[in-house]
Amino acid sequence: MNLRMITKSLGMLLMLEAACMLPSLGVAILFGQGDAAAFAVSIAIPALIGALGLLVKQKPGDLYARDGFALVGMGWILVSFVGALPYVLSGAIPSIPDALFESMSGFSTTGASILSEVESLPKGIMFWRNFTNWLGGLGVLVLLIAVLPAKASSIHIMQAESPGPYVDKFVPKIGRVAKMLYIIYSVMTLIQALLLMAGGMPAFDAALHAFGTASTGGFSNRNLSVAAYNSPYIENVITVFMILFGVNLSLYNLLLKGKFKAVWQDEELRFYLLSLSAAIILIAANLAVSSGMNVLESLRYSAFQVGSVTTTTGFSTADINAWPVFSKCILMLMMFMGGCAGSTAGGIKCMRILLMLKGVGIEIWKIIHPKAVNVLKLNGKPVEEDIHIGILTYFFLYIFIFAASTLAVSLDGQDLVTSATASLATLSNIGPGLGLVGPAGNYALFSDFSTVVLTINMLLGRLEIYPVILCIPAFWRRNRI
Amino acid sequence: MNLRMITKSLGMLLMLEAACMLPSLGVAILFGQGDAAAFAVSIAIPALIGALGLLVKQKPGDLYARDGFALVGMGWILVSFVGALPYVLSGAIPSIPDALFESMSGFSTTGASILSEVESLPKGIMFWRNFTNWLGGLGVLVLLIAVLPAKASSIHIMQAESPGPYVDKFVPKIGRVAKMLYIIYSVMTLIQALLLMAGGMPAFDAALHAFGTASTGGFSNRNLSVAAYNSPYIENVITVFMILFGVNLSLYNLLLKGKFKAVWQDEELRFYLLSLSAAIILIAANLAVSSGMNVLESLRYSAFQVGSVTTTTGFSTADINAWPVFSKCILMLMMFMGGCAGSTAGGIKCMRILLMLKGVGIEIWKIIHPKAVNVLKLNGKPVEEDIHIGILTYFFLYIFIFAASTLAVSLDGQDLVTSATASLATLSNIGPGLGLVGPAGNYALFSDFSTVVLTINMLLGRLEIYPVILCIPAFWRRNRI
Repeated sequence: MNLRMITKSLGMLLMLEAACMLPSLGVAILFGQGDAAAFAVSIAIPALIGALGLLVKQKPGDLYARDGFALVGMGWILVSFVGALPYVLSGAIPSIPDALFESMSGFSTTGASILSEVESLPKGIMFWRNFTNWLGGLGVLVLLIAVLPAKASSIHIMQAESPGPYVDKFVPKIGRVAKMLYIIYSVMTLIQALLLMAGGMPAFDAALHAFGTASTGGFSNRNLSVAAYNSPYIENVITVFMILFGVNLSLYNLLLKGKFKAVWQDEELRFYLLSLSAAIILIAANLAVSSGMNVLESLRYSAFQVGSVTTTTGFSTADINAWPVFSKCILMLMMFMGGCAGSTAGGIKCMRILLMLKGVGIEIWKIIHPKAVNVLKLNGKPVEEDIHIGILTYFFLYIFIFAASTLAVSLDGQDLVTSATASLATLSNIGPGLGLVGPAGNYALFSDFSTVVLTINMLLGRLEIYPVILCIPAFWRRNRI
Repeated sequence: MNLRMITKSLGMLLMLEAACMLPSLGVAILFGQGDAAAFAVSIAIPALIGALGLLVKQKPGDLYARDGFALVGMGWILVSFVGALPYVLSGAIPSIPDALFESMSGFSTTGASILSEVESLPKGIMFWRNFTNWLGGLGVLVLLIAVLPAKASSIHIMQAESPGPYVDKFVPKIGRVAKMLYIIYSVMTLIQALLLMAGGMPAFDAALHAFGTASTGGFSNRNLSVAAYNSPYIENVITVFMILFGVNLSLYNLLLKGKFKAVWQDEELRFYLLSLSAAIILIAANLAVSSGMNVLESLRYSAFQVGSVTTTTGFSTADINAWPVFSKCILMLMMFMGGCAGSTAGGIKCMRILLMLKGVGIEIWKIIHPKAVNVLKLNGKPVEEDIHIGILTYFFLYIFIFAASTLAVSLDGQDLVTSATASLATLSNIGPGLGLVGPAGNYALFSDFSTVVLTINMLLGRLEIYPVILCIPAFWRRNRI
């Protein structure tokens, strides 16, 4: 482990986080609701510790993949702890496990909350809560790469922080790619905020909901989430942008370069849109038949919830607990799948599901033609066996962690559906689940132990597991690194 | 496809099934409850059709893997249809989808029932119901191989019908291996029946429960299942034998040859026993703490239910619906895992879970040491990448089918837990699930559509999916075979 370099990077990361709290401090001062002091202290602490970290003398040497993974894991834990300071110091969330849950929920773009009442929060805290969503969407370390002169070894950091099995598209000029992604992300967020304001949403709410949508985080400053605005226009804008942010952001870069054909032929994009359409139509039909809702209305509700759940955003306009079981089943399946690799969405990712489905075809082919060769391909390019095994093992590990955390949470004695969907909705970074953690409920009902388990789940889901394992010191010793 | 050879084999299989109905006819005549005529007709039909099949002229040629898979898939469908005849003809189960469900549940060793009342069934039907369990345990085609002169190509049939990713242990002298397995199976069944009789169980019941245990099928001729006998001795005998039959039967062959060390060091066996012990202790502790049951009693209940569910038998002595959520979660996880490869148990199989867990270690190793090689091993022998991908893909496909069938069944509008565990309990060949299909319930509540879906689930679970896909004629045409 290159511990000196990791320490130095963590120092820079803390200073970056301090800087990222400045807008919230500004909002707090502007509205004068007594949370400014909390932000001043919350900024001073990471800024000072970060400055100390920069004093570490760096030996020559480079970051290996394992250092990149460990840095990302440790960086996220640190950033979430520091991000919880304003909640605790302002008195908004006095319990430390709860504040950490809320902070991790923000950065990991989960959007699960232990708060039953958010409308009475001071505006600075409201802003910080949703800004953590936005920062976590593309990743705090990718932001560091975007703002600092990058090195070749930054690829390992990007690889560890970006969702999905591939990042090789980005290999050359990693710093420029990170900048470009953040520019696309910011511009799309801005456009959405403006469109929401055009629909009559107050500017403050529009900014916060745009942060929540772009990051597929799903925090809202309204208790009823998006349902509070009671506006089909606002719902539809958010539906469209949720689905847009569930797409691999590098495809927008290709669009800007005029490579329309490559985008249109992208197999993951097609699979994503096809799954979304199928889910929207099936649920709309189920709603229309079971409740006699008219077709347009059922399509609007269905599209919003399917978009929200598939992109793992977690906004809601309806209490899905009251929907028919068939619709709930579809939503749960989409919770597992999630959005595209390279998007801000969580879940297992469409690319992995698509490749595993193709893998089934190859298994059958092997029984029929034992001697013929049939290679797994994506967008016409062969996928190496190593990566194929990696994708499949990730799926197994995902289901395994889902099962293990459901088991841990079930010790609280809540019903099976609540325990299982709390575990799933945090691991897939969605937010609300079903049962008592449905859109109308929240996560305050869990014991401290379960709160910690679900907090770890959010981190595991956002970082795709391995960086979290690699930042455990006991693990380095065992493997002599 | 070698259709002539397949037809001929199917003919022999039908004649074998007719012969296997003779004991039930004997029981029916002995008790004279009016079901003898149903058996006489049910025997005549497959015997005649089977004889016609034997007239097919066979061209020289051999069976390939795909023929073996297709033969097994078609054979099982045929055998289950014919096995439903006594239910329909005797009037015990007049509905054809229900009778087919019961027959498939028997042969696939699931033990799920659409009957709410079994104690009033005629004795011949009772006997047939449990005898189908026993026949399905090791497999009807393996029985055919055991009783007929076998060919080298029979390996493909054995491979398709035997659970687990490996059968290569058996390659030479396949007929002798099939015979040896059936002898071990029969002797162990007999020992269990005698032990049950020693505990005061009537001989008829003892035979039926030994059939149900040996096959990990779990049919009982009592409405309350094993709880009806209210005897700790009987419960404990069944617990031990359920666990014994969840072990790879070829290990007993090694024991007979005196290879104790190889058995003791078998990694799958250790993993199986370790998981069982952990589950039994955790549930016993949970029961003792939550209900104040004494430790020995809670251990007895826990061991019985864990044994029943892990080996996918499905007997019950308690209503697990009333158990704490933590215990229910553990039982559900064991339902997914199932017993050992090469046993009569269903589920994903311990060997696959063990190898996938080892695979996770290798993935982490790859991040730490990208250039070092680390090979997946079982019992010291390397597992090829092809087989590793096959195991992982099977896991994905299993979860995929579980999800798809849950979705299909959810159209009936039963609650999530009932829909999901009905799907799981049939796919893993267990029998009872949770909710309305718990030990106190049955499968009569489902629509015909769901009954068919769950029937297919049982077949998919028992044959490990691929043989069922390969017996679809439309599939041959598409793949030009």
